[in-house]
Amino acid sequence: MIQIFVTGGTFDKEYNFVSGQLYFQDSNLPEMLERGRCTLDLNVRTLMMVDSLDLTDLDRENIAHNCRGVDTDQILITHGTDTMQQTAAYLADANIEGKTIVLTGAMIPYAFGSSSDGFFNLGSGLAFVQSLPPGVYVAMNGRYWDWDKVRKNRSTGYFETIK
Amino acid sequence: MIQIFVTGGTFDKEYNFVSGQLYFQDSNLPEMLERGRCTLDLNVRTLMMVDSLDLTDLDRENIAHNCRGVDTDQILITHGTDTMQQTAAYLADANIEGKTIVLTGAMIPYAFGSSSDGFFNLGSGLAFVQSLPPGVYVAMNGRYWDWDKVRKNRSTGYFETIK
Amino acid sequence: MIQIFVTGGTFDKEYNFVSGQLYFQDSNLPEMLERGRCTLDLNVRTLMMVDSLDLTDLDRENIAHNCRGVDTDQILITHGTDTMQQTAAYLADANIEGKTIVLTGAMIPYAFGSSSDGFFNLGSGLAFVQSLPPGVYVAMNGRYWDWDKVRKNRSTGYFETIK
Amino acid sequence: MIQIFVTGGTFDKEYNFVSGQLYFQDSNLPEMLERGRCTLDLNVRTLMMVDSLDLTDLDRENIAHNCRGVDTDQILITHGTDTMQQTAAYLADANIEGKTIVLTGAMIPYAFGSSSDGFFNLGSGLAFVQSLPPGVYVAMNGRYWDWDKVRKNRSTGYFETIK
Repeated sequence: MIQIFVTGGTFDKEYNFVSGQLYFQDSNLPEMLERGRCTLDLNVRTLMMVDSLDLTDLDRENIAHNCRGVDTDQILITHGTDTMQQTAAYLADANIEGKTIVLTGAMIPYAFGSSSDGFFNLGSGLAFVQSLPPGVYVAMNGRYWDWDKVRKNRSTGYFETIK
Repeated sequence: MIQIFVTGGTFDKEYNFVSGQLYFQDSNLPEMLERGRCTLDLNVRTLMMVDSLDLTDLDRENIAHNCRGVDTDQILITHGTDTMQQTAAYLADANIEGKTIVLTGAMIPYAFGSSSDGFFNLGSGLAFVQSLPPGVYVAMNGRYWDWDKVRKNRSTGYFETIK
Repeated sequence: MIQIFVTGGTFDKEYNFVSGQLYFQDSNLPEMLERGRCTLDLNVRTLMMVDSLDLTDLDRENIAHNCRGVDTDQILITHGTDTMQQTAAYLADANIEGKTIVLTGAMIPYAFGSSSDGFFNLGSGLAFVQSLPPGVYVAMNGRYWDWDKVRKNRSTGYFETIK
Repeated sequence: MIQIFVTGGTFDKEYNFVSGQLYFQDSNLPEMLERGRCTLDLNVRTLMMVDSLDLTDLDRENIAHNCRGVDTDQILITHGTDTMQQTAAYLADANIEGKTIVLTGAMIPYAFGSSSDGFFNLGSGLAFVQSLPPGVYVAMNGRYWDWDKVRKNRSTGYFETIK
């Protein structure tokens, strides 16, 4: 069984046509999994729906607590891209033994249709969580990195390897 | 470096609005990789553009020949779903040593927009080819199978494990 | 009140991922009207769901009968493009007095997403039916034609004025 | 010939994936007209690319000046929805004789894919401009209103008739 924890981020942002602002409603994950014709044994749980710039260490402890408590060793976390590496570092430091934890997200909301990278990232995130050894990883741009080997380049929007 | 071989299949079918028929034009892969914001070192080569029901063993030998000849051990093949397992079996039998070969495809053409599973499958196929040990695999429905453990259920359109 | 009669055509075709064939399910009109945020007073009724090449004069008499019987003088008909002008001619000949009847359709199914012209054509068809004087019209390619001034060019897929 | 003047608004907003903000790039109109398979004789000119809340009377005079100067009596203006009725009132007051001027827009950006109403509104706007008598109109929600008979309901996002 694979556990998916939803934490928000651009991946799940929606457009409010009255205010013209981006906001969070329900996660798009169930629709995405159905469209992907996914037959994996999955459990999806929304822990929070926040912009990752607003994530606190209390939120991160909440995520870590849920990773520890869940009865599987394959965990995918959807997360905003701005602090994905911070949360990955927090989880790597949280003494969660023997589990493969993959963080993924999107640069363009899934709700924005044919320009979004979210559906591709979900496919790769689910694949990595099934096939990588225990550890904490970031999966973006078709690739994966160990938690301490990656950073987001804020000016290009791409993830890069830290040498 | 990852080698992608394009062979056609529903993944790359287009709709001809004059005739009302499905047909093949150029592959959608370059557009999909850009949309996925993919930064992997990739080489994409179209070997053929055919419905997999029309694939012959000569075509399969062509695919095997290209798998042998390419200077990388990570190979992703986009392929029609109807005979994906036959091509996987052919490649498993073709004495291609030390390479991870993943076949993926789509049940709904990428060109048909928001209902297609192709973009999700591309993400998972690229992830599996980076993380699975040498062998021949089929990647569909978010999952992967060894070449001899899977079949497509023709009445549901889902891939199933052979016991 | 505007009456919409659905008769099928490419406009409402869907892709069957098991058979790989195009087919008809329910009309996409309710979803399209909601997406268009349409607040017109509308009644939608499906008369048939057929490829317009399969339409018989019995079907056309059925359409004419419904046009006569409905208690409004604004009628939009969604229709396959191949015989749109034949049905328009049949209706022009059917002694339906004082009603504005507009036929529209699509070259690419609405279900095929971002390449379809159907949503644009629905917008223009609804506008023409509100603003043109009584008569029978074909609305395609952003334009409208009197029923006897238009033909579909089968090789280009565009509608043309008959001189 | 139909003249289209682009002024910005939600219709043409894009998502900046680096900043997470909405912004204006080039207009989506050329792509939309091609997708709509539009064969009207059209001229498209971008006058400005602004959120309609930022439109000044100087901008409105610019629009009026262009409406007066152009050598056609059919003019479609794409415009933000928040002040669409103000601009319509300005143009009605600007002594532009004998021209049909239609303002349209969108509640959800065209770039946001399958949820946007923009493509439908473009179809209806183009149809109304061909078929309504001289005057200034607002076309939204599948309907049209005389410039002085409509207002946007800011809490629902729908346009309403002023009694």
